[in-house]
Amino acid sequence: MTAPELGEAALAALREAFGESLSTAGAVLDAHGRDESGLEFARPGAVLFARGEEDVVRLLALAREFAFPVVPFAAGSSLEGQLIPPPGALSLDLSGLTGIVEVCPAGFLAVVEPGVTYPQLNRALRPHGLFFPVDPGAEATLGGMASTNASGTAAVRYGTTRENVLALRVALADGRVLSLGSRARKSSAGYDLRHLFLGAEGTLGVITQLTVRLWPLPAHRAALRGAFPDVTAAADAAARVMGAALQPERLELMDAQGLRAVNRHLGRAFPEVPTLWAELTGPSGAALEEALSLCAELFRDAGARDVQVARGAAELEGLWEARHQAFYALRALYPGEVFLSTDLCVPLHELAGVIAFTGAQLQEAGLDASVLGHVGDGNFHVLFHAPAGDTGTWERIGVTYDRMVAETLRVGGTCSGEHGVGLHKRRFLRAQHGEALDLMREIKALLDPLNILNPGKVLPDER
Amino acid sequence: MTAPELGEAALAALREAFGESLSTAGAVLDAHGRDESGLEFARPGAVLFARGEEDVVRLLALAREFAFPVVPFAAGSSLEGQLIPPPGALSLDLSGLTGIVEVCPAGFLAVVEPGVTYPQLNRALRPHGLFFPVDPGAEATLGGMASTNASGTAAVRYGTTRENVLALRVALADGRVLSLGSRARKSSAGYDLRHLFLGAEGTLGVITQLTVRLWPLPAHRAALRGAFPDVTAAADAAARVMGAALQPERLELMDAQGLRAVNRHLGRAFPEVPTLWAELTGPSGAALEEALSLCAELFRDAGARDVQVARGAAELEGLWEARHQAFYALRALYPGEVFLSTDLCVPLHELAGVIAFTGAQLQEAGLDASVLGHVGDGNFHVLFHAPAGDTGTWERIGVTYDRMVAETLRVGGTCSGEHGVGLHKRRFLRAQHGEALDLMREIKALLDPLNILNPGKVLPDER
Repeated sequence: MTAPELGEAALAALREAFGESLSTAGAVLDAHGRDESGLEFARPGAVLFARGEEDVVRLLALAREFAFPVVPFAAGSSLEGQLIPPPGALSLDLSGLTGIVEVCPAGFLAVVEPGVTYPQLNRALRPHGLFFPVDPGAEATLGGMASTNASGTAAVRYGTTRENVLALRVALADGRVLSLGSRARKSSAGYDLRHLFLGAEGTLGVITQLTVRLWPLPAHRAALRGAFPDVTAAADAAARVMGAALQPERLELMDAQGLRAVNRHLGRAFPEVPTLWAELTGPSGAALEEALSLCAELFRDAGARDVQVARGAAELEGLWEARHQAFYALRALYPGEVFLSTDLCVPLHELAGVIAFTGAQLQEAGLDASVLGHVGDGNFHVLFHAPAGDTGTWERIGVTYDRMVAETLRVGGTCSGEHGVGLHKRRFLRAQHGEALDLMREIKALLDPLNILNPGKVLPDER
Repeated sequence: MTAPELGEAALAALREAFGESLSTAGAVLDAHGRDESGLEFARPGAVLFARGEEDVVRLLALAREFAFPVVPFAAGSSLEGQLIPPPGALSLDLSGLTGIVEVCPAGFLAVVEPGVTYPQLNRALRPHGLFFPVDPGAEATLGGMASTNASGTAAVRYGTTRENVLALRVALADGRVLSLGSRARKSSAGYDLRHLFLGAEGTLGVITQLTVRLWPLPAHRAALRGAFPDVTAAADAAARVMGAALQPERLELMDAQGLRAVNRHLGRAFPEVPTLWAELTGPSGAALEEALSLCAELFRDAGARDVQVARGAAELEGLWEARHQAFYALRALYPGEVFLSTDLCVPLHELAGVIAFTGAQLQEAGLDASVLGHVGDGNFHVLFHAPAGDTGTWERIGVTYDRMVAETLRVGGTCSGEHGVGLHKRRFLRAQHGEALDLMREIKALLDPLNILNPGKVLPDER
């Protein structure tokens, strides 16, 4: 199915309908032509700054009438090319829809517009002793997070965005606006259509409102950092923690490469060995101390040479510094280079093996890249980097990437743990899903027969 | 769309294909003509005892060819008429598919056939220190639990069946068998089609294999039981527990009526007042004691007059006795009567109000019924009972039930928290879902254009 395009008649109708909310200014088009993946750039034909759900519905009516593609956009922080407009597309900017419609502390829920960022929501929740736990980084919006099923470091304890969205309002390509889900925490009342739109990257509908689940802020928090002789020992420690029902809030792994970058960039002296972080919480200080001792013991049993403990905000910040700064340190060490992050997720017991496989592949290809992992989930990232024009290196990166994905699928994993598919991962979907990919296409054809919703994303071009 | 029927030619072809696995014996047909809801009875035209996925695929080919309906069946414990065959249907009995294909302790996952019951799975997991936490009661099978998105008392901590199924194999009406999901704990790789089939009650496909998520058995466990002056105080205590990040394993409410029944039936002397149970676990004994003290304090703050604590298996059994025996006690007190359980779920802060509304409605209608609740989830049941032929009482029950559902939907809840829709809840789906119900119909037409998969369930007849 070829994608339609935005023509002059359509632009005139859009100007008529939306006036100043529509922009074709060069700088605005530029700002909507890239995401954080940094590999593609393509200007949209126009940008609409939506002022509310009605604008979305009206826009989709014009998109049907004039047959042009619509690409939902908000923070611009997607990592797989989700926001790159196909030729002549309209970029639908939802970042202005920042209304926190309702906070219901007693019901542990909030209703938000799609342009609300998770830090903005958490600032509003703090006075109530509650928080929204999904933390993908950047200033991601709830609409974008729902569209890619984003997660982050706290998913090991609280689940991904998917598990924390109770209800959605979604504008369909055909003009309908549906309410999906309820305010109740669980439901068995008919097909759960929420999940079709969560992770669909704007290809099946446009999310116009979200009802999200909130969690109580833990009263007591502490963290441990362990230095391990090798990645296998660190992965073993992680498995022990997960098996001990310690319910860590976070469980993060970083290889020696990341720590070297931090030491060089910030002048620190962290041990340049595979490092594991665990964050724990408890309903009381004493309960937390018990959990900390047990966790430290598990770290040591698995071979940790050095275990540091942090309590209180300042100490926690220090303990986590290397993990938080790794991405910036690596960027700073290779100024001007392009970074590409993989995002694979495997069953927990396969993680050490897949990371070892990855290390061997990196060595064979002569690539220098770091490994970071949300290890409690089996999710890990390899941060590749090279100058944009260094085609030789980018080719080797491509080959290595493909081998890593093949190994991930061989052990039953997924080609995307949290970043989504966008443009970059489409080529892996047939291998991962087999015939289920055909049903995905049938669902797409049912919901978007004119192919106006973010065409060319998620589903591969196979012919 | 009218449902097709099983004719003589179809029966001959079925006998030819399946031999002894096909039965039309009267006792077998009788056993497949009812579920635990007890309101309907209708014999299927035949029963196929499937021996594997190939039988399911072959059966569906014949169902297409001869246009007869197929109703998946396993434990027979559904509560909303899900298993009642439409005229001339074939009942597809999957209860013989009891293979535990794989237990992978290090990956916290198991692969099972759909006829495996959750107690059977948990017996196989115990030696590994793991368990599957969803406990809907009866000897429910994993296939049935997935098909209704069943939950139970532990969903407050571990989620429902939906959150604990990593992957599915599903046989479609058109002959395809799809693998959905992966062995990884999370994924953002395309549309998540698992969730279409979870809770679809066999109307979109037949589940032939499940990969489920396992959890470590908590090392230390204890429980509290509090006696409260009224339901509002007990609901308030539940809200405090949920707000304190205590992460109870269970949080259950029962009204005075249920305790009276237990006392009369078993000769006990439990205080006949609204009662709240909380079960807590911890990574160490000391951590658990801390959590217990805090929870008891929250119970007392909310007005509990008496708080009992139990530690160890025997004490726990005693503490939970009234809750576990309530259903049997009520059945025993009204021998020969038919029981009907509602299954509503509301946001936590609305629970006390909806239960109070329910109490007023019961009183107005002169009905004697008990209220039980998975209160941490906002899920509660009213157990109605009356002699089958007492049409006057059943009419008043019907009116009361409808008013309870209307109030539930008014506060943003759902007409089914865990039992599903089947035949009984279909009439509420338009009010609950609005236009989203039309999209459910479109999905059904896409996946089952001949309407052979459990026709007449979930989706209401509106014309």
